[in-house]
Amino acid sequence: MPIVTIKMLEGRTDEQKRELVEKVTDAVSETTKAPKEKVAVIIEEMSPNHYGVAGKRVSDQ
Amino acid sequence: MPIVTIKMLEGRTDEQKRELVEKVTDAVSETTKAPKEKVAVIIEEMSPNHYGVAGKRVSDQ
Amino acid sequence: MPIVTIKMLEGRTDEQKRELVEKVTDAVSETTKAPKEKVAVIIEEMSPNHYGVAGKRVSDQ
Amino acid sequence: MPIVTIKMLEGRTDEQKRELVEKVTDAVSETTKAPKEKVAVIIEEMSPNHYGVAGKRVSDQ
Amino acid sequence: MPIVTIKMLEGRTDEQKRELVEKVTDAVSETTKAPKEKVAVIIEEMSPNHYGVAGKRVSDQ
Amino acid sequence: MPIVTIKMLEGRTDEQKRELVEKVTDAVSETTKAPKEKVAVIIEEMSPNHYGVAGKRVSDQ
Repeated sequence: MPIVTIKMLEGRTDEQKRELVEKVTDAVSETTKAPKEKVAVIIEEMSPNHYGVAGKRVSDQ
Repeated sequence: MPIVTIKMLEGRTDEQKRELVEKVTDAVSETTKAPKEKVAVIIEEMSPNHYGVAGKRVSDQ
Repeated sequence: MPIVTIKMLEGRTDEQKRELVEKVTDAVSETTKAPKEKVAVIIEEMSPNHYGVAGKRVSDQ
Repeated sequence: MPIVTIKMLEGRTDEQKRELVEKVTDAVSETTKAPKEKVAVIIEEMSPNHYGVAGKRVSDQ
Repeated sequence: MPIVTIKMLEGRTDEQKRELVEKVTDAVSETTKAPKEKVAVIIEEMSPNHYGVAGKRVSDQ
Repeated sequence: MPIVTIKMLEGRTDEQKRELVEKVTDAVSETTKAPKEKVAVIIEEMSPNHYGVAGKRVSDQ
């Protein structure tokens, strides 16, 4: 069973998250041929002070 | 050192989590022969709107 | 930047993996409005003797 | 559904891994009351040159 | 692009976290030769009742 | 105990990995004030056909 974890900055609406889980499941099922029922998706939100690129956190930019 | 991460839906009691860490540590130590002192367990709770199977989040069911 | 990790059993073709990265990136970008250039996808394959559901590994079924 | 990931140094036998998945599933199911069929376990092995504590890799000790 | 995830107990100050992201990025860039702009760092805090070693959670000690 | 996971493309030398674990441990210990003995570092290498940004795997570029 494919297990998908999506880490992203907090701030998306609940509707966006609903669609995200739906569309990513479709994409995984279509390309891997795993039945949809076997695809799990987890969203993990990051706060801007807990994520940085190039040594600088989003909250410091 | 075995490092165990358990992702599960939020909602368990503190007593259940206490037991979960204890019993999983025992199971890992007994089967891998790693001393208990070397086993770390992390619980990561998911909210129902951040987890879905078959394209549908738990919060949408 | 959304970071997507997909854990799945080994065995898909290289073409399936290519498509998987492409389609999942599209799905994440469309729903989260993050530009494609900001979406990273990681595939992590599991061998059948390292993955189990209901206490039974895939290699033992 | 609880998803358990166990990272540990390579070197356990296949029989140890089989028991590890079985016993950890039991421990998670008993304490969280999730049915066994809903518990997934993933083993991820680390090589001694990819893991270190106190700044020193296992392969350098 | 190196992606670094740091799991640690909650309780550090915002200034400590800012420095943590900066210094870890430097260390990764210097040793791997990846340009800083390609290094992402994620901090994930654990609460004392969700983390344990030797079967005992930090909150139970 | 801080647990650091570094995902990066395969290809670094063993000496680079040795230094990576050493320097990252130093950076984490200095900024979080956790003693070095409590810092664990895990390196996880990705192959070019298992990692992509903007929908394109490194192996397809």
